[in-house]
Amino acid sequence: MSAATDLMDDAPYGVQYLRQRIHAEFPLARHIGIEVEFAADHGLVLSAPIGPNANHNGSAFGGSQFCIAVLTGWAWATCYLAARQVTADAVIQESNIRYLAPAYGPLRAILQPPLPEAVDKFRRMLRRAGRGRIRLDVEVHDGAKLVTRFRGVFAVSIR
Amino acid sequence: MSAATDLMDDAPYGVQYLRQRIHAEFPLARHIGIEVEFAADHGLVLSAPIGPNANHNGSAFGGSQFCIAVLTGWAWATCYLAARQVTADAVIQESNIRYLAPAYGPLRAILQPPLPEAVDKFRRMLRRAGRGRIRLDVEVHDGAKLVTRFRGVFAVSIR
Repeated sequence: MSAATDLMDDAPYGVQYLRQRIHAEFPLARHIGIEVEFAADHGLVLSAPIGPNANHNGSAFGGSQFCIAVLTGWAWATCYLAARQVTADAVIQESNIRYLAPAYGPLRAILQPPLPEAVDKFRRMLRRAGRGRIRLDVEVHDGAKLVTRFRGVFAVSIR
Repeated sequence: MSAATDLMDDAPYGVQYLRQRIHAEFPLARHIGIEVEFAADHGLVLSAPIGPNANHNGSAFGGSQFCIAVLTGWAWATCYLAARQVTADAVIQESNIRYLAPAYGPLRAILQPPLPEAVDKFRRMLRRAGRGRIRLDVEVHDGAKLVTRFRGVFAVSIR
């Protein structure tokens, strides 16, 4: 993924842009150690080391997993809006998270790209009403192991 | 609540016990600034200041709200088990969270005490099978304002 990451580093709303926004806007993200690995319209990956996010038994804290997943959804919406010069914040409205297995290694949160129809509907809502909602799914992995499924509904209101 | 808190300070599995366990077992809890305000079988309140948990716009990060809520559920299960000399960890299995309004002040997470029938069922499952599950509801408040509703299913396996 490093070649792709390098490419995205130069994109106006890619890895560097997101990294800067996440660290400036969410103080807790620094303590979680969140990094942006990959960022594009069709995919997004955030990561965090296990150290600051481990329970005393060595497995990842469910709260940390929620944080990295919700920021992955936020990051997709934020890039989507920024790339289209829309000045608006995305906020989480509702979420469901399921913990499938314990994680003991670094966490990687992978956005499951929303269907084109869902993105189209989101875009039309923003254009017509100045606000919209979109559901974003994120999987958290420990290496090759899927450990957590996150589903979040994000709301956007154009200022 | 200070008189009750003082009383609970002296309880074997009250405020001091929980505070110590949370801070020893969840490194991130220190960064969130989680404190235990009240702890008893029939109720539990955790709090956190807004500072480390604010987004850049001053409202509370949804991830921080999840963390304080999930730790409130964990804390109830942990006290329940410890008070009955059961050696077991409670882990979050699935959760739903709804953000109703933005929070701008200190956060207070209040456990909605589970129904006696639910607690009885949980106790019987632990006794018969060595493991059990219980659903715990937590409300997050900013002052008098209800900002977030959390519902979590916690699983316990006796070691």
